[in-house]
Order: sequence, then C-alpha cells, then structure tokens
Amino acid sequence: MDYQAVLEQIVQDIAPQVGGGRPAEYIPVLASVDPSLFGMAIAEVDGTVHGIGDWQRPFSTQSITKVFTLALALAQGGDGLWARVGREPSGNPFNSLVQLEYENGIPRNPFINAGALVVTDQLLTLNGDASNELLGFLRQESGNPRLGFDAQVARSESEFGDRNAALAHFMASYGNIANPVPTLLEHYFRQCSIEMSCGDLALACRFLARHGLRADNTRLLTRSEAKQINAVMLTCGTYDAAGEFAYRVGLPGKSGVGGGIVAVVPGHCTLCVWSPGLDARGNSVAGVAALDRFTTLTGLSVF
Amino acid sequence: MDYQAVLEQIVQDIAPQVGGGRPAEYIPVLASVDPSLFGMAIAEVDGTVHGIGDWQRPFSTQSITKVFTLALALAQGGDGLWARVGREPSGNPFNSLVQLEYENGIPRNPFINAGALVVTDQLLTLNGDASNELLGFLRQESGNPRLGFDAQVARSESEFGDRNAALAHFMASYGNIANPVPTLLEHYFRQCSIEMSCGDLALACRFLARHGLRADNTRLLTRSEAKQINAVMLTCGTYDAAGEFAYRVGLPGKSGVGGGIVAVVPGHCTLCVWSPGLDARGNSVAGVAALDRFTTLTGLSVF
Amino acid sequence: MDYQAVLEQIVQDIAPQVGGGRPAEYIPVLASVDPSLFGMAIAEVDGTVHGIGDWQRPFSTQSITKVFTLALALAQGGDGLWARVGREPSGNPFNSLVQLEYENGIPRNPFINAGALVVTDQLLTLNGDASNELLGFLRQESGNPRLGFDAQVARSESEFGDRNAALAHFMASYGNIANPVPTLLEHYFRQCSIEMSCGDLALACRFLARHGLRADNTRLLTRSEAKQINAVMLTCGTYDAAGEFAYRVGLPGKSGVGGGIVAVVPGHCTLCVWSPGLDARGNSVAGVAALDRFTTLTGLSVF
Amino acid sequence: MDYQAVLEQIVQDIAPQVGGGRPAEYIPVLASVDPSLFGMAIAEVDGTVHGIGDWQRPFSTQSITKVFTLALALAQGGDGLWARVGREPSGNPFNSLVQLEYENGIPRNPFINAGALVVTDQLLTLNGDASNELLGFLRQESGNPRLGFDAQVARSESEFGDRNAALAHFMASYGNIANPVPTLLEHYFRQCSIEMSCGDLALACRFLARHGLRADNTRLLTRSEAKQINAVMLTCGTYDAAGEFAYRVGLPGKSGVGGGIVAVVPGHCTLCVWSPGLDARGNSVAGVAALDRFTTLTGLSVF
Repeated sequence: MDYQAVLEQIVQDIAPQVGGGRPAEYIPVLASVDPSLFGMAIAEVDGTVHGIGDWQRPFSTQSITKVFTLALALAQGGDGLWARVGREPSGNPFNSLVQLEYENGIPRNPFINAGALVVTDQLLTLNGDASNELLGFLRQESGNPRLGFDAQVARSESEFGDRNAALAHFMASYGNIANPVPTLLEHYFRQCSIEMSCGDLALACRFLARHGLRADNTRLLTRSEAKQINAVMLTCGTYDAAGEFAYRVGLPGKSGVGGGIVAVVPGHCTLCVWSPGLDARGNSVAGVAALDRFTTLTGLSVF
Repeated sequence: MDYQAVLEQIVQDIAPQVGGGRPAEYIPVLASVDPSLFGMAIAEVDGTVHGIGDWQRPFSTQSITKVFTLALALAQGGDGLWARVGREPSGNPFNSLVQLEYENGIPRNPFINAGALVVTDQLLTLNGDASNELLGFLRQESGNPRLGFDAQVARSESEFGDRNAALAHFMASYGNIANPVPTLLEHYFRQCSIEMSCGDLALACRFLARHGLRADNTRLLTRSEAKQINAVMLTCGTYDAAGEFAYRVGLPGKSGVGGGIVAVVPGHCTLCVWSPGLDARGNSVAGVAALDRFTTLTGLSVF
Repeated sequence: MDYQAVLEQIVQDIAPQVGGGRPAEYIPVLASVDPSLFGMAIAEVDGTVHGIGDWQRPFSTQSITKVFTLALALAQGGDGLWARVGREPSGNPFNSLVQLEYENGIPRNPFINAGALVVTDQLLTLNGDASNELLGFLRQESGNPRLGFDAQVARSESEFGDRNAALAHFMASYGNIANPVPTLLEHYFRQCSIEMSCGDLALACRFLARHGLRADNTRLLTRSEAKQINAVMLTCGTYDAAGEFAYRVGLPGKSGVGGGIVAVVPGHCTLCVWSPGLDARGNSVAGVAALDRFTTLTGLSVF
Repeated sequence: MDYQAVLEQIVQDIAPQVGGGRPAEYIPVLASVDPSLFGMAIAEVDGTVHGIGDWQRPFSTQSITKVFTLALALAQGGDGLWARVGREPSGNPFNSLVQLEYENGIPRNPFINAGALVVTDQLLTLNGDASNELLGFLRQESGNPRLGFDAQVARSESEFGDRNAALAHFMASYGNIANPVPTLLEHYFRQCSIEMSCGDLALACRFLARHGLRADNTRLLTRSEAKQINAVMLTCGTYDAAGEFAYRVGLPGKSGVGGGIVAVVPGHCTLCVWSPGLDARGNSVAGVAALDRFTTLTGLSVF
C-alpha cells in the first residue's frame, strides 16, 4: 500500500478540522501549544516509517504512555495484575472516583487514571523504579536515545495533581496501592511528561502490531498477550468515547490529552497522529478525524 | 481451514465447562432447559455451514435478536437512530436504570434493554410492525421458513416484564419513546421469544461477515455500516462483560440469556454457540469458553 | 398569641416574593394557575382557624396528601409498612430512580413518589380502596364535606405519568408492589388530584399537633406514632431541600407541587400556606418565605 | 424533672443492649476499648449536671467535635461558609466520595467528613490555627482545663487516613480547600483525637440549648444561628441514619465513632451518652437506645 499517498490524502481531507477543539488547559505547558499543528506517522511492521506534517516534532505523550507501562507490567509481572485492575470500559470520565467507590478501590481498566496508577505501582514494586524503566523501553523501541522527561511538565502535573492524589489515596484506603503515595505520584507524573514525536510513538508501539515482538526481535509479550492489550485499547483506550472511536475508526487506539493518539492495525502497521485541539472527552479532534479517514481510505479496520 | 476439526477439538477442550453456570431463572421456560446441552455452528461467507453437538436444536434467542433489529432499523431508517441511543459501553448491568437517569433517557447503546426498546420503537414507527419484520428477515437469512415466535416465552416475558416496562415508561417520560408503551413491549417480548438453532443464527448474521450483503446478495448495509455494527458488538455486545469478552475472545459478539452467543470474523465466517449455563453477567459459560478456544486454535481474532 | 396579627405581618414581609418562582409545568392544569395568589391559614389545637389572603381558595394538594396516606396506612396496618419503605432523606429529586436501584426497590422514605406509591399500595391492600379512604378522612378532619377529586387533574397526571409508571413497575420488579400497577396508579393519581384550601389543610393535619387525636377526639395514632410522622416530615418532607427547610423554618412540613405547604408546631398549631410559584426543588417560594417569617416572628420553631 | 431518676430508669431499661454492636475497628486505639462501658450525663441549662455509669470517663470524641468546629467557624466567619458546604442530608456513608463528584466538590453538609474538612479549612484560614482554637473553646465550655489531644489517636488517624486524604485532595482539585492538604489533615486528625467525658460534652454543648449563650453568658451565636445548628444536627448529625434517629429519638444529635452521642433539648438541657459498640452505620447501639428511652420517659422530644 502507498502509505505516503494515503497520508497526503488524509491531510487534504481533514484540513478543515485541524485547529478545531481546544488544547488541554489544566496545566499551562499544554494550554500554550499551537493548536494548528498536525502530524501523522505510520510505521510498517518491518520498521519503515512514513510521516507527514509535524510528525517529527515532540509533544507531550501524557496518557499514551499508559499502553507501554501496561505492557511492561504484564511482561515483567504477569497476569497477577488483573486482580488489582479490571478490563472493562468505565463509561465515566478518565479521572472519576465514583466507580472506584462502588467497586471497592479496583479501577475499571488500566487506561483510566486510577488504573494507570495501579499499573505504575506494580512496576515500582517489580523494579524499584517505574519511570526510568519506561523511558529505557521507549528509547529502545523508538530508536531515539534523546527521549527524556520534561521536568516542567512533571512539576506542573504535580502542582495541579490533586485529583490524581485523591485517586491514589482513595485506592490506598482500600489496600490497592503498595508504595507510598508521594513516590507513586512522582513516577506517574514523570511518565506522563515524556515527550515523543509521532514517528517515535509509531515505532515504539510496533510490538502490538507484531504480536509481541520488540524492535530487536526479542519477545516482550506472547501473541495472546499482545492481542489482549489490543483488545483493552479498543474497548478502553479513548476514555469514555471508546465506543464512538471503535464505531468511527475501528482500530485499537490510545489517546492522550497532549493531543496524540496511537493506533494499531495488527499484522500490518502502527499509526500515531497528533494535533493539540481536543474534543469534550479529551481526544484530539483532528486526530480522530485522520484515523477515521485512514480506515476509510485503506479498508484497514479490524472489523 | 478445516472448521469441522476445529469444532471437534473445541468440544473436547471445553467439555469440563459444559453444564457450568446456571440457566436464566427469571422466566420458567428458560429455567427448565437442560444445562448440559451444547451446540456450535460456523457459517462460512459462502454459506457453507459446519456444526457440532446440539447445533440444530432451537433455543430462545433472547437478546441476540438485538443485533438484527439494530441492523434493520439502520438499514430502513438510517443514522437518525443515533440521536436516540448512544454507542458507548454502559459499564452497568443490561437492565439498569441508573445511567438512563443521569443521561436523560438516552440509553448508552442499542444492546442494553433500554437501547433495544428504542430500536424496536424506531422499527415500529418505520414499519407499523417490528416483530414480524424481524421474523421475516430471520427466515430469509437463515433459509429456515419454520422460524416463529414462542408464545409461551413471550407471555412469560410479559408477566415478569416489570423491569422492561419501567425502562420503557422511564424513557417515555423523557420523550424518547414514540409508540404506546404496551404496544412497544408486546413487540419487544415477541422478538425475544424467537427460537432458532446455532445453524440458523450463524447463517442469519452472515451479512456482518460479508460487509453488509444479505444471503441473496442484495445489500442490507453499506460496508461502513456493517463495520460499525461489528464495532458496537465488540464494545457493547456482552452486557457489562464486553471488555472481558474482547480480551478473551477478541471478536464482535452478542449474547442472550437463553445461552446463545453469535460472533463474527469479518471477511471469514460467523459463529454461533449455545449452552444454557450462564455466568454472573448473563453470558453462557461454555459458550465464551468455546469462542475463546476458537480464536486460540485458529488465530482468527480481530486483533 | 395573636395569630391574626402574625399573619398580617407575614403578608407584608413577604410581599416581594409572592409571584416569584414558577408554577409546576408538567401538567397544564397546574401551569395555568395565577402565580400571584397567596394564602395562609393557622389552625390552633382547639380548632380555631385564622387565615389571610386566598386561604379559602381550593388548590391542588398534590404531594401534601402523602402525609395523610402515611398516617392512614400506619393507623390501619401498623409498623409492617417500614419493611417496605425507609425513613431516611433521599438526597435526590422526588422522582429519581437511581437510589431505588441501588437499594433494591425499597424507597428511601414515604414522601418521595416511589415511597408514596408503596404507601398507597399498602392502603389498597388493607382497604380494597385507597383514594376514597383518603377522601373520607380529609372530609372528616377538615369538616368540609364538599372535598373531591379533580378528574381533570387526575387524567392529566395519568397522561403525563410515565415517570410514576416507571417507578411502580420498577418496584414491582423487586416484588415491592402487591396490586396491579394500573390500579395502583389510578388511586395514586386520584389522591394527588384532591383540591383543598389552606383552611381545609390546616384543620386536616391537626392530629399531628394533637399527638395523634382526630378532630372528633378519637385516636388515630399513638403519641409516639404522631411524633414519628413529624420526624419523617422534618427530615424528608420537602424533597431534596429538607435540610434547607429545617435550617430556615425548623418545623415538620410537607410541600406539594401545587404550591401548598403544611407545617406543624407540635402541641400548638398547624399551618398551611399556598402560593403557586415553585423554586428549583419544587417548593413554593413565597410559602417557604412565609413559614420562615412565622418561626422568626413567633419563636415557634421546634429547635 | 427528676433527671437522676430518669437516668437510673434508662440504665435499667437498656441493660440488654450495652455491649451490643462492635467498637470502631479502623484504628487500634478505638478497637481495644471495653465494649461493656456505658455512661450518660445530662446538663441542665443552668449548668447542673446529672450523670450515671461511666459518665466521668474520657473517651475519644471523634466526629462529635464537628459540632463545635461548625459553631466556631460560623461565629467567627459568618454565613459565607455555606457557599462552600451544603446543609442537606447526604444519604450516603460519612466518607463517601460519590456525591462530592456529582456536586463538584461541595460537600453535602458539615457533618460528613468532607464537610468537616471544609469547616476546619475555614477555621484555619480565619485563625491560623484550628485544633487549638477548638481545644480552648472546649476547655472553657466544659470547665475542664485538663482536656487535651490524644497524640496516639491522632497519629493512628493519620496512618489510616488515606480516605480523608483522598477527600481533601479531591475537594482541593475543585478549589474548595484553601490551606495545604497536609496541614489541614493534621488539624483535622488532632481535633478528632480530643478525649472528653459525657459530663464534659454535655456541658460543652450547652450553648445549643441556651440559644447561643456560652457558659460565661457571653454570646457565641445568635438565637437564629443556634436554632440552625440544631436543625443541621437533626437532619445530618448521625451519618446516613439521621432519618432513623429523628424517628426514634426526635432530638438534634451528633454521634462519633468513639461511641459518644450528644443531643439537645432546646431550652431545657443537653445530653451526652457513651458506649463503644456501634451499629452498621457507626452510631452507638446502647447510646441510641438510651436517648430513645429518654425521650419516651420524659416526653422531651422536639416533635
């Protein structure tokens, strides 16, 4: 398939939607990003990368990193994780406490904030570190050794982090957090602060299109585990708009409030699209539109 | 692929789970079914059918019919339906009223009872009938002209139907029901009462694996609409266990409390499995296990 | 105490608030009432009545009748009622289904709609009738034999009664309704349709200020039961504004969407105030203000 | 009235219930208290105190102190407090986060934990201190200069304080906490750790029976403010059992998980009863029974 031609067609088709929505406003660093930026990259399973627009420009990955911490926690600690976090769509905003109370401190899935805190807590327990473990993995998979934390973003997240602190303390009150809450939050905020480009991210999640194989062809996950993460992405990867995303795009995907979205066509390729303007549910407006166009133009939906 | 061999392997593998769980108990007709029954059928896109066990024995389709009414309502009335019913997983039991109140009478998706009532209401408005419209469609697609309503089941549903009556009146109070509630309920209960075998059902949902084409090769849905229904099945098709089902099975599927489950491998085949014992969330225990084995043995997951 | 002087002072003080708020709009008969009307009556325990403004003009009692059906159900059937309905404030709007689902079909208290339906159901079972039982009681206590149902209001309630039908069917699905839902609703809507004046109502609830004694000095309730109904009125009598009402007024009270409110000063007197304009929670704006002034001017709060 | 004789009668009547229920178990200090202890004291408005049983033995006041911090915050800061905390019963357990989320960080009332944290936050802002302000007040009103914090209890509360930390951070995320969360929690936990006897507490809340006058006859609250606090106690003072408490006892009251309950008969007297065994909702079993007997024996209910 001529992916470059597809990318060019997409850029034309979605031009009216670039700049739509509003960048995340809860921390200043995100709020000040130029909303007219747009980039998109496709990584084929063999490692060939195609890109368009601002595809090489780093942006704040935010919740997209939740995919990678989940993969690492499963690879290193195995299935036991699922006793502490569910696999069901939440039907509620990503930072809601309501469901957590009704369900006794067990988050619905690993992609809402509460669930991601549990995953990071698990990684901390397994490694004594979580954020550097993640960073090392992302550098290797993307082949980009310059990836790093954005200290200013991490500090901002922490300053405006009362909601996440509430989630962590709340789960701790149910015995579902093993490490001290401040340590956990520090690692969590650092993970969210990593900056990557569309190209970096498309490469980094290739293991999900390659049934568990890493860039160096060693195995991170079994075929079955890779499939399972894709399933969780499809049902839970885009906050409380997962149904809508599956309906429109029909691919496993994970979004972040930095405006990025990664998506997977198992066996074929991975995609990353970025544009800072978000819709009411926190997903990139132009990003969803671009992925929608991609599946329509190529027929490469999972359905 | 040698589907018959696959079916034989599945039957061997899941034998310990047949008889597990408990048949639905809310109406006598369902409660009295022999829980040791098990059948499974695969319909290839060309119409070839493979079956094993009790695959030709009719059972109560119940909520599985929600897939077909949705397809008919979209085919006949188009996208307008989505203004009255959402496409998000509910995260709540199939007959919950809670979310409906928070969201002003708009059901989360067409596969929870409230959403299916809206779909039936739409069909009623479009056709002046809903249950016979459905029956005609199912007869044609399955090639089985003997399909019919089970009057005893429909009457039982009605007798024990206070929860559904509550849902219908509640949505009516928000203006989201157009027809008289008793008429709507009558059609809804009749639809749920249709008896079909695994073979009938696998054939009847072939249009979802054939990108919208009916058995007679006329078009029911556009390619895009067929994909969309598959997406809704994957995210919402198995009550509040949709995430778990996607994780284990990885196929669009729809279950019913009669113990049946249909599933779709787009472009390849459709499946129907039946065994009356249900798990706590209302899905057939042996049925989910059999579909899990199917995707593991064949590698035919969408992920 | 010179109650007439108190009434005159109140009318002066609250003049700016008469006409504030909006009449109930869910049925036409209520929506068309002149919002500038205002009446207030005080009945001393000896039966002396004082009134001002439109205190002799009949209005739609609506939910105020819930006090009387509760008293009758307790007087005739005793404490068993409390196994079917709670005594806790609901913290939710009067017609909410959410709590009912979390609490398995047992309404929080007898003054939200769901709870009042259970009380009427109980009366129906005890008497074979509920609405005429209530009407007879009200005629006797008020000394007004002309009291009757307003057929037009009852019909309107029924036409727009989907929410109450939903509540009744929902409780029936939990086994908490003994009579057929349509019969129950008919009695419920008739009860709500009774028209009474402030004077009629102040007299009719005198048994609550007289520790259980009826107008003819026979005993309806024990001293303890009368106290208990007053307690339930204080904590639950004004929908989800009961805390605010206790804070401002400090008397057991019960409001209706017709704009009336009855209140009790145990051992001293009963009050009824009426003005059709409602606040956001369904309580008469001028009515609450008038009762607030009454307790401030007289010092006759229970606190 | 011969209060001493009343107390003796009560002790006889409720003997079977002393030792019922279970002491609070969330912190070790409370769990180890002898459940067979029982004390009760009555303070007349003139300062005469009557006591029985373990009425002079100090126990952990816990949530009872919420009454005093509320009174101080209103006395010192006025009505503005009500913009930050409501006055409605919550209908949920004392430490629930659900309602807080639906209502955007504004707690339902000042007696659930979230509301009390806001009150303490307000006191901190007004005084630069909250816990010592409270302690000084309690020493003066009770006439007991030896009252102090229990450092071990405060430390335990802090160690097991994740739920309260979650509440505080959660409200901070809505902008409803002005002071740093750790400082706020420290003051909050110290307040809860104060030890007092039934005699101390009955005296200390006499201002609520004396329409706002302190022990030294200076005015803490206006008559209207004192009435309002009594109203909030009646509707919200015993967690999600306020309706039941009003029904059985019919007095403004406030309970603590240390097993104490204070109650007010406006114009007459104040009461404090203590016994460590709690019911499922966190109220002293023998304590509620004793107050129930008191109102029955004396007729001194507000209703």
